[in-house]
Amino acid sequence: MEKLKTVEHLEDSLSKLPGVGRKSAERIAYAMLEMPKEDLESFIVSIEGVMNNVHHCKICGSLSEDEICSICKDETRDRTSLMVVSYPKDVLSIERSEGYHGLYHVINGEISINKGITLSDLHIDSLLERLENEDIKEVILATNPTIEGETTALYIAKLLAEKDIKVTRLAYGLQMGGNLDYTDQLTLVKALEGRHKI
Amino acid sequence: MEKLKTVEHLEDSLSKLPGVGRKSAERIAYAMLEMPKEDLESFIVSIEGVMNNVHHCKICGSLSEDEICSICKDETRDRTSLMVVSYPKDVLSIERSEGYHGLYHVINGEISINKGITLSDLHIDSLLERLENEDIKEVILATNPTIEGETTALYIAKLLAEKDIKVTRLAYGLQMGGNLDYTDQLTLVKALEGRHKI
Repeated sequence: MEKLKTVEHLEDSLSKLPGVGRKSAERIAYAMLEMPKEDLESFIVSIEGVMNNVHHCKICGSLSEDEICSICKDETRDRTSLMVVSYPKDVLSIERSEGYHGLYHVINGEISINKGITLSDLHIDSLLERLENEDIKEVILATNPTIEGETTALYIAKLLAEKDIKVTRLAYGLQMGGNLDYTDQLTLVKALEGRHKI
Repeated sequence: MEKLKTVEHLEDSLSKLPGVGRKSAERIAYAMLEMPKEDLESFIVSIEGVMNNVHHCKICGSLSEDEICSICKDETRDRTSLMVVSYPKDVLSIERSEGYHGLYHVINGEISINKGITLSDLHIDSLLERLENEDIKEVILATNPTIEGETTALYIAKLLAEKDIKVTRLAYGLQMGGNLDYTDQLTLVKALEGRHKI
């Protein structure tokens, strides 16, 4: 018996997800075949939902269902502090730590020689523009504590060196080689407290 | 920032998949937000594909895109041998071994006290019907080597005891390519019991 074409197509789609190999894709696909139709329909609706309703915030580049995200809109936040993160998901991690109340800027990536990503591929122009137009006193570089993240932070720090803005980096409470997303909340708070000028 | 509702909905759907916890669901959801729109569209099409095109074969209960599956239709297969498996996926596993060329019957589950599944919840009536109408000489019970699978096999064997049909069970023993050192004691006992002359 050959594998059914429809099942194979589903496995192909599943195996594109992070952490899902061919074997897991097969296991998940067969489990989906046994799932109630309503669950599958709800799954489709949820994919359509993010596909059609989630955009990048026009100001900070974070994810939002509106043109401007809730953080950029929030007048109670400290508008003199701007945290630069690599990915939209990092905003959520920092927010969960509840140790930061300023604004964000998502550059949407990190400099990587392997992936051929340079500074010009990142949302740096919009960052510089914000620094011109907004009343930012401090830029906190919160890229990942990896080679790519460090490199990106250093390049941005260099770009901002001439400006009258305090540029800081999250403290090395972060685990080197780790992932911001997998860092526990207390460590994130400690890292925020211990930020230093670069 | 609260999590976006659409993203949360997607995470809910993802966490229903086997082996996907809340943390993985979040990671996958955010990765999907970064995926090309075509990939997400293809994902939706693939789910719709299995939802609308994959059915249980009217004869054996295995999965098929047609009313009758390719194995049941295949006239070259040995129609006197019927292998009883618990789940549609098991058919694929046995087919991959290329060691069996008879027919299948998928009972779609196993007796489980925990899950409240009894013999009447399984596709046993259709099995008995086939044994009446088809020329089956041997029924091979290939349910899982677990308590649930064993119980199910024993019950079915009892049901068929009166009939003039040979009822067999897959052998227990060492895993090919495995290690004696890593084989559990029960399997070792079973392997010893089932030893054969060479």
